[in-house]
Amino acid sequence: MSPQLHSGSVNNTFKVPKGKKVLRIDSINPQVREVQYAVRGEIAIRAEELKNELLQKGNNLPFKEIVNINIGNPQQLKQKPITFFRQVASLVEYPDLLLEENGDKVKLLFATDAIERAKLLVKACGGSVGAYSHSQGIPHIRKNVAKFIEERDGYAADVNKIFLTMGASAGVQLALRFIIEHSKVGIMIPIPQYPLYTATLSLYDGQAVPYYLNEEKDWGMDIGELKKSVDTARQNGTDVRALCIINPGNPTGQCLAEQNMREVIEFCQREKLVLLADEVYQENIYMPRTRPFHSFKKVLKSMGPGFDDVELISFHSISKGMIGECGRRGGYFECQGIEQEVVDEMYKISSVSLCPNVQGQIMVDLMVNPPKPGDESYDLYQKEIDDIYQSLKRRSNLLCDAFNELEGVTCNKAEGALYLFPRIRFPDGVLKAAKEVGKNPDDFYSLAMLNETGVCVVPGSGFGQEKGTAHFRATFLPAEDLFTEFIDLLKRFHQDFMDKYRD
Amino acid sequence: MSPQLHSGSVNNTFKVPKGKKVLRIDSINPQVREVQYAVRGEIAIRAEELKNELLQKGNNLPFKEIVNINIGNPQQLKQKPITFFRQVASLVEYPDLLLEENGDKVKLLFATDAIERAKLLVKACGGSVGAYSHSQGIPHIRKNVAKFIEERDGYAADVNKIFLTMGASAGVQLALRFIIEHSKVGIMIPIPQYPLYTATLSLYDGQAVPYYLNEEKDWGMDIGELKKSVDTARQNGTDVRALCIINPGNPTGQCLAEQNMREVIEFCQREKLVLLADEVYQENIYMPRTRPFHSFKKVLKSMGPGFDDVELISFHSISKGMIGECGRRGGYFECQGIEQEVVDEMYKISSVSLCPNVQGQIMVDLMVNPPKPGDESYDLYQKEIDDIYQSLKRRSNLLCDAFNELEGVTCNKAEGALYLFPRIRFPDGVLKAAKEVGKNPDDFYSLAMLNETGVCVVPGSGFGQEKGTAHFRATFLPAEDLFTEFIDLLKRFHQDFMDKYRD
Repeated sequence: MSPQLHSGSVNNTFKVPKGKKVLRIDSINPQVREVQYAVRGEIAIRAEELKNELLQKGNNLPFKEIVNINIGNPQQLKQKPITFFRQVASLVEYPDLLLEENGDKVKLLFATDAIERAKLLVKACGGSVGAYSHSQGIPHIRKNVAKFIEERDGYAADVNKIFLTMGASAGVQLALRFIIEHSKVGIMIPIPQYPLYTATLSLYDGQAVPYYLNEEKDWGMDIGELKKSVDTARQNGTDVRALCIINPGNPTGQCLAEQNMREVIEFCQREKLVLLADEVYQENIYMPRTRPFHSFKKVLKSMGPGFDDVELISFHSISKGMIGECGRRGGYFECQGIEQEVVDEMYKISSVSLCPNVQGQIMVDLMVNPPKPGDESYDLYQKEIDDIYQSLKRRSNLLCDAFNELEGVTCNKAEGALYLFPRIRFPDGVLKAAKEVGKNPDDFYSLAMLNETGVCVVPGSGFGQEKGTAHFRATFLPAEDLFTEFIDLLKRFHQDFMDKYRD
Repeated sequence: MSPQLHSGSVNNTFKVPKGKKVLRIDSINPQVREVQYAVRGEIAIRAEELKNELLQKGNNLPFKEIVNINIGNPQQLKQKPITFFRQVASLVEYPDLLLEENGDKVKLLFATDAIERAKLLVKACGGSVGAYSHSQGIPHIRKNVAKFIEERDGYAADVNKIFLTMGASAGVQLALRFIIEHSKVGIMIPIPQYPLYTATLSLYDGQAVPYYLNEEKDWGMDIGELKKSVDTARQNGTDVRALCIINPGNPTGQCLAEQNMREVIEFCQREKLVLLADEVYQENIYMPRTRPFHSFKKVLKSMGPGFDDVELISFHSISKGMIGECGRRGGYFECQGIEQEVVDEMYKISSVSLCPNVQGQIMVDLMVNPPKPGDESYDLYQKEIDDIYQSLKRRSNLLCDAFNELEGVTCNKAEGALYLFPRIRFPDGVLKAAKEVGKNPDDFYSLAMLNETGVCVVPGSGFGQEKGTAHFRATFLPAEDLFTEFIDLLKRFHQDFMDKYRD
């Protein structure tokens, strides 16, 4: 080493305090620190601890298992994957299975149409699912997504405006990153909301501009409320540029009526707002006659060329619906009315991360192009989808009814999605006891529920709720045969809890 | 609609220009706009165009195919995946294959140890690879990563300091996001560098603090150069907080000597810099006796407790080595000397994206825990790895020799990684002609090469290079039997090009 190396830094303006690390909680990116993410927050961490305690013999816990109704994670709760999808996913992984010489043996285990689809997909990947793909997603798969959108909506879709992503979350994050030009940019988000939105806005240093969903009107959207929200924010100096809508709603489960959607689109045009439509629950529709799903793309196109200037980004995912392939991380977004130069920049940014994972892309292909009537796998596919769908519908009603029987609890029906978001009116004793331990009443209640029953929900404060109200989010995903037992547990806990804190 | 809705925005400070979109190239996040990413830039896009032209009958192109030596994407260039890895990847996807009743049929197609491993992994996933996993990665797989690190280095590794990621890129991006507290924070990066670093620094609004690798000394690191770089930056008001090292190097292929690494660690301690060690090419070592791979973790630990305060984050990937599973997006990073509070924040941020894709995680498990001697699949596994390794070594030498035979070209041998980075000394005519069309000489040369031979490389300016020098990066990944032909094409092109522009 040359002697001058011992002289230390020439300029110590940015000195790290003596004996301290460079990376400390008070020296990291402050946006990182500000992120709050309740879905995997305190209660989820406590649930992990309890899970470990349960594994120990002689534990004194008053329950035998943790019931995770906090996360929309169907396959964790034993929902069976769709056979055709998994056959294809399996076949593409091991090229020997697609060799002519193994055909007879492979056909003992896999359906012929799954084998054909796997061959097609491996070819579309350029010969191997282990190669980086096009950064925007495999063109063949994007074509199938475009066809799916066209068949769903009755309007053309452009493969070059579709991006495959590692789950819808990654797509939402990319869109928000683009829109937030500076720290005064505001994005309208529903309250209650899925906390991905507030977390990402913290991380990217944008402003969350809340608008409230109306619990009394089945969590509907009110244009007056939107207008009030954007005006207040703009009066306060926020540069509001986009409106996020989760439809069907998370955690609220509402499914928007077409007329309401038209009003929202008119509002976006009038107020110059990019519309971000999180439509990951589009297959989870439990009142298809009175509350069918309409995509924002379809409603927008149906309003004619006068609305072609509206900027819309729609998101979809393989994690929800009846597929529930959460762990695979796959999804897509479609741009409508977005300038080509901006789309080009999206491609550039996607290319820095090389490509979305190919296994996720393949599941997107299967989601948008499932077996058709007459295909060998069609009957089984249809039966599996129907069974899951009917069971979800039954479970949503069962749980909703159970919540509505609890003292002080009211719960809207799930029109869509995978969640219920009941409201609880607590006796004053609860508010006092919660305050004493420095917790929100809903956090206090949910933690007590977990500790006493093993049932893990997410407190409403993690999603946002009107001041002075208390809710929690619960999925209705546990297996149907567990429902009687865990609802019974919940009922007893709730009554004891209310009795304990009654004046 | 109520009448006040027609009144328009109450405050038009942030008015979108009439007839313009909200999202325009001049209104998006400016950091997005500043990102440059050459690996998939102009030349890669031109290559895509040519690929489409080749598909058209009667095209007049002077070559028959595009040879993509621009990206380290082995399986795109027909490298065969590792059989055991893909058998397991296939089996975990389709649960029926693991049922007792199908055992006999499945054993006709899959090795017994692959079946056992698949059962173990599905169990570790909680029963399905379709469920979200722990946000930091499946605990069972993180344990195997810790064991792998311990066996590699001879020092303990902590499962709670290991994060599974969607490729090493995602890990690097997370680390950089944490370190960049504000826009004056600087990160030292090698020049030439893999452009993920500059792209991410642009995106996260940090400062790139370049240090030069020494081409004359086999692209080695020089502590005097590092010191000069950090001092200059600090004098200019940059708050330098971290040093990135790619070892083995990309695009430069060097493999650091242990003594050099000790000096680097001492430098980081003295200058209070977090060390980011990108070690994704740790298995691609072509001079194992004179230039073996040492991990920074091992070298750091070998220096004793006096260096326990050094903050190190090391990255690894399933995309490189002899595995080459790029499309799957998997990897991990390990924190050493990082404060627990900061690690907790990393977990929080990981949880916003839910989890790394499970298929990538599974491949990490296979990479760190491959078949052992005595296992049914061991011999085949070992043969496949050896064949790929020996062939890579041969191909790196063949291509390096070919480059060194070209007029005006010098090329260091690849000690590691998957690339050569030859330097070209052009006649003045090239510099003049390039200037006339507004291009760098290396861009000009590489584009001509692509247009005339179909061979696609990445110009040196995409990685950074010393002023006045010109390079390009080429992988040596095409199949061995194609080498004679494509080297021949290159030679003829190069000679014609040099002749054309000679004074």
